[in-house]
Amino acid sequence: MSEAVSPLAPTDVPEMPAIAGVKLATAAAAIRYKGRTDVLLAVLDKGTTVAGVFTKSKCPSAPVEWCRAKLKAGKARALVVNSGNANAFTGKTGRQSTALTASIAAKAAGCSPNEIFLASTGVIGEPLDASKFDGVLGGLVGSTEPAEWIDAAKAIMTTDTFPKVATATVKLGKTAVTINGMAKGAGMIAPDMATMLSFIFTDAPISAPALQSLLKAGVEDTFNAVTIDGDTSTSDTLLAFATGAAAANGAPKISRASDPRLKAFTKALNGVLANLAEQVARDGEGARKLVEIIVEGAVSKASARRIAMSVANSPLVKTAIAGEDANWGRVVMAVGKAGEPADRDKLSIAFNGIQVAKRGARDPSYDEAEVSSAMKQPKIQIKVSLGLGKGRDRVLTCDLTKEYVAINGDYRS
Amino acid sequence: MSEAVSPLAPTDVPEMPAIAGVKLATAAAAIRYKGRTDVLLAVLDKGTTVAGVFTKSKCPSAPVEWCRAKLKAGKARALVVNSGNANAFTGKTGRQSTALTASIAAKAAGCSPNEIFLASTGVIGEPLDASKFDGVLGGLVGSTEPAEWIDAAKAIMTTDTFPKVATATVKLGKTAVTINGMAKGAGMIAPDMATMLSFIFTDAPISAPALQSLLKAGVEDTFNAVTIDGDTSTSDTLLAFATGAAAANGAPKISRASDPRLKAFTKALNGVLANLAEQVARDGEGARKLVEIIVEGAVSKASARRIAMSVANSPLVKTAIAGEDANWGRVVMAVGKAGEPADRDKLSIAFNGIQVAKRGARDPSYDEAEVSSAMKQPKIQIKVSLGLGKGRDRVLTCDLTKEYVAINGDYRS
Repeated sequence: MSEAVSPLAPTDVPEMPAIAGVKLATAAAAIRYKGRTDVLLAVLDKGTTVAGVFTKSKCPSAPVEWCRAKLKAGKARALVVNSGNANAFTGKTGRQSTALTASIAAKAAGCSPNEIFLASTGVIGEPLDASKFDGVLGGLVGSTEPAEWIDAAKAIMTTDTFPKVATATVKLGKTAVTINGMAKGAGMIAPDMATMLSFIFTDAPISAPALQSLLKAGVEDTFNAVTIDGDTSTSDTLLAFATGAAAANGAPKISRASDPRLKAFTKALNGVLANLAEQVARDGEGARKLVEIIVEGAVSKASARRIAMSVANSPLVKTAIAGEDANWGRVVMAVGKAGEPADRDKLSIAFNGIQVAKRGARDPSYDEAEVSSAMKQPKIQIKVSLGLGKGRDRVLTCDLTKEYVAINGDYRS
Repeated sequence: MSEAVSPLAPTDVPEMPAIAGVKLATAAAAIRYKGRTDVLLAVLDKGTTVAGVFTKSKCPSAPVEWCRAKLKAGKARALVVNSGNANAFTGKTGRQSTALTASIAAKAAGCSPNEIFLASTGVIGEPLDASKFDGVLGGLVGSTEPAEWIDAAKAIMTTDTFPKVATATVKLGKTAVTINGMAKGAGMIAPDMATMLSFIFTDAPISAPALQSLLKAGVEDTFNAVTIDGDTSTSDTLLAFATGAAAANGAPKISRASDPRLKAFTKALNGVLANLAEQVARDGEGARKLVEIIVEGAVSKASARRIAMSVANSPLVKTAIAGEDANWGRVVMAVGKAGEPADRDKLSIAFNGIQVAKRGARDPSYDEAEVSSAMKQPKIQIKVSLGLGKGRDRVLTCDLTKEYVAINGDYRS
C-alpha cells in the first residue's frame, strides 16, 4: 500500500450524496495498518434488503461463508468491513472470529447478529483478532454520519492507491432515488465473482430477491469482465443494500426484477457497477496502462469472453503493453491458446483503432512509427476480429509492470 | 537474449556422444540476430523415422502445419531450424516460405521436400525471408560433422541463457543405443504441447508409429508438466528422429510401442525428456528460483494436474517466491480458484518440507524464521495435500521477477 497514486486514477471524484437510511463511520483498529482507518461500519435502517455475489473460490474466507448463510433471509441492519486481514484460511478460529464480530456489531446496532454482514480483506491465513472490534464498534454507532463516503472507501483500501466511489440518481416511478457504490481492488482480481470488495447502497424500495437478480445480471459485464492478474481472491464480495427510504417520498415498492418500472434503475445500477469495475482496473497493482480488449466476430459472446480473457491474462501481452510495444504476435498467441474457435487466416487485430494485422498476416499498410506512437497513450484498446460469427465481448485489464512484481514480491514482509 | 546466464543453469553439461546416421551443422544467416548462429541443419541417413508433437494453439505457425502434414509418411532426411523469426501468422507468405525452405534443403540433402522437417522460433508476424537459406544450406551439407551438439543447441536459442542438451545410452536387446536431445525454451511455455522447440535423435531402429506412441506418452509428465508463464506458443514443436543405425550392430527392429524390449529405452527416453523439460524451467525468462509444485490427495491425477498448474501459473504465487516470501495464503487462493474439488478444512501446505498450513489453518508449529530461511534456496518445493483421494501430480515452473517484465517489455524493440 501507500504507493504513489495510480496515473490512471480518475481526475473527477463525484460528490457523493447522502442515502436515506444509511449511516457510515470509520475507525482505526490497528488490525494491521498503522496511522490509518481500517474498519468501516455502515448502519442501515430497519427494513433494509440485501443481495450479494461472492467469489467462486473453493476455499472462501470465513466472512464470505458468513454472508452467504445470512443472505437467505434478505435483511440487513449493519455492514462491518475491515482491511489488513482477510480472515481467510483461518479454520475454526476464523468462524469464531466472524461470529464474535457479528455479535459485537449486533449489540452496538441493536439488532440480531443474523442481520450483520461482514467483509474482510488483507493477508490470508493469519487469525483475525475480533476483540479489536470491541469498543471500536460501540463508539462508531454513535458517531455515524450520513455521508462520509470517501472516508468509507478509504477505510477498506489495501494496496489500492485511490478510493473508489461512484453515484447515480435516477427516477423510480416519479421519485428520485440514489445509488451509491464503493469498491476496493488492486490485485488478485479475476472474473467469476465480484471484485475483492464492493458495496452498493440505495434508498430505492426493492425486495431482496429482485435486488439479487439485478445484481447477478449486473456483474456479468462489469466486475466479471475485469481481470488484473487472473488470480481469484478467497474473499471477493459484492453486497447491495436497499434501505427503501425513498418509499416515504412516493417511490413504488418493487418486488420483482422483471418490473418494467425498474428499467432506468437497472441501467443506473449497471452504470455504477461498470464505473467501479473500471476504477478497479485503473488501480491494478503497478498499472500504468488501462487496457480494453474487444473481441468481435466470435462464434458466441461466451467464446468472445474466453478469448478476451486469454488475451487480458497473458503475461506476454501485458508486459508488451507495459513496454509500449505493439506486439500483436503475442495477441495472436493468446487468441490461439484460448482453445476457442479461431481461424488464423480470418483474424484481424487493431491497437487503438490502427489495423496491424488483417486476415492472418501483417496489415500491408502497417506503419511501425504510427502504432508505436499510439502505444504511448495511457489507455490501450486491443480489438480482435475473428470473422467467424456475431459473438462480441469486452474485458478490461491493465499492463504488467515491474512495479506489480515489486508490490507483490514483498507484500507480507 | 544475451542476458547473463541463469543462476539455475545446470553445472554439469554432459558429453554428447555421436549418433550414427545424424550429422549436424550450424550457420549465421542473419535472420534477426547478428554475430551468432541462427540456423541448424541436421542431415539424417536414409531410413530415419520421425515422430512429433506440436502446440495445441488454434493459430499454429507455418512450420508446425508443414511438419504435421509431412509426419504422416513417417520418414525424415533433414531438419532445418532457424531462430529469430517464428514464421507464424505470416499467412500465404509463410506457407510459401516453408515450401521454399524445404525445397532448398531437399536439393542440398538430395531428397524429397516431403522428407524435410522445419521449425522456426522468434518473433511472430514478420515474414521470414527463406531466400536467406539459399546458399547457406548447400554449404552446410558439406560441412556437417557427427557431433556438434552444443553448437546445435546454441543455434536454436532465442531468449535462452544457456544451451540445453541431454543424453542417455541404454540397451535395446543386447545392443547399446543412444538418445540425444536438445531444447530451447525460456518464455511462452505452457502445457498441452511440447516446449517451444525440442529435438530428439536416436540410432535405435524404431518404426514411426512406435516412436510416435512413445513420444506422446513421454511428454505428458515432462514437457507438458512445465509452465513458465501460462502462455502457449504458436510454434511449439517436439520432433524425434530414429536413424536405425544401431540395427547394424544387432539392435532389434522395433515396430510396436508395446514391444517389451522397449522397456529400458522408454525409461531412458522419458529421462531425456524430463531432463530437457527441467532445463527449460531453469531457464524461464528472468527466473531466479526453480519451483516444483506437488499436489497429492486430489480426487484424480488430472485434478491434481489442474490444481498444480493453477498454483504454477499464479502471478501472485510466483512473485511471492521471487520475494522469498513463504506466502502460503496465495497458494490457498490458487488452489481455490482452480475449480477442482478441494476442502479448505482438509488442506495442508508445505514449503521445502516445512509444514506451514495444516487442515485448513496455519500450522501450530509454524516458525516464520525457519520458513523464511528455506525460501532463500534456489529450488523451492511447494507441496499441497488435499486429503481427498489418491490423485498426485507434479509440475515445474519458476518465479516471476522484474527481469521477466524487463525481458518481455522490450523484446521486439
